[in-house]
Amino acid sequence: MTQNIYKLTILKLDHRPERDKRITTHCALVSRAFGADEFYFSGIEDKKLIENINKIKKTWGGDFKIEYCKTPLKFVKELILKKWYVIHLTMYGLNITKEIENIKKIKKNQNILLIVGGSKVPREYYEIANCNVAVGNQPHSEVAAISIVLYLLDSNQLNKDFEHSLIKIDPDSKIKKVINL
Amino acid sequence: MTQNIYKLTILKLDHRPERDKRITTHCALVSRAFGADEFYFSGIEDKKLIENINKIKKTWGGDFKIEYCKTPLKFVKELILKKWYVIHLTMYGLNITKEIENIKKIKKNQNILLIVGGSKVPREYYEIANCNVAVGNQPHSEVAAISIVLYLLDSNQLNKDFEHSLIKIDPDSKIKKVINL
Repeated sequence: MTQNIYKLTILKLDHRPERDKRITTHCALVSRAFGADEFYFSGIEDKKLIENINKIKKTWGGDFKIEYCKTPLKFVKELILKKWYVIHLTMYGLNITKEIENIKKIKKNQNILLIVGGSKVPREYYEIANCNVAVGNQPHSEVAAISIVLYLLDSNQLNKDFEHSLIKIDPDSKIKKVINL
Repeated sequence: MTQNIYKLTILKLDHRPERDKRITTHCALVSRAFGADEFYFSGIEDKKLIENINKIKKTWGGDFKIEYCKTPLKFVKELILKKWYVIHLTMYGLNITKEIENIKKIKKNQNILLIVGGSKVPREYYEIANCNVAVGNQPHSEVAAISIVLYLLDSNQLNKDFEHSLIKIDPDSKIKKVINL
């Protein structure tokens, strides 16, 4: 769906279905809508989450992939060995407004992994990441952090069509208009 | 905290503490971090939510206000009578990328209310809003929608300091640095 040569992948750490169900779902939906290629989540396996996102994909199109990641630290280390650029999104990191131009340049030549945290992110992720980046240094939301970074990487994404969709919205100022394709 | 003469207020409809606890919390935190002045939520009253956001405000500064709104449709109608500009954020609306310049102009002369939905938003809100606006016409998240609209209205917000905070982050590429003020 995206026209990148290089992949943009999201890893959401420490999913807990009881507590995080909707947050992780929103993280995945935002990743898809804003142009990421893949979404992995670690923590507790959750087939219902995968099913829900795949249902959305079937209806709304695109070739977004969602998968469970059992061993996230090993996964990140493997990507680093494969020369991926790893960004950990955390409120403690360097402000995205200063880092975005550098990240845009990197994206032209390397696959990118964006890691977003769970409750407490182990120190290893701060150390292993190529860069720790903050979407502002205030507490807010991993859902917002993903959306802002992806929007800054490709602001045209919000106007793009998704291939093979079954329905499509006809944008309107006053009413709901849905087109069956 | 914001330097607007005119107010920017968020209304989150239909809060259900059991199901939406973290989503509404994230909506409020994003509203604060990205520069809104006030946050109202309708649905079920939730003192814990208000307490949590006020704790964040005490620690991290600013003068953001959160309040429960018992009668949201009445509230919106009253603001319209007071010449507020009301934007309903919905995936069925006009794409924000086309509407943002118009909204920026309006913000110089009018208070703005941004409404974000719950599960099913009653038709009245679509009709009563001055405009229905979509952050892309794909399903994703009210948390992301708020963050993108507020970011587009004031992209400098992510670099601003919040007044009267007890702590502050010293942004770093590798470790957590917190300054006690």
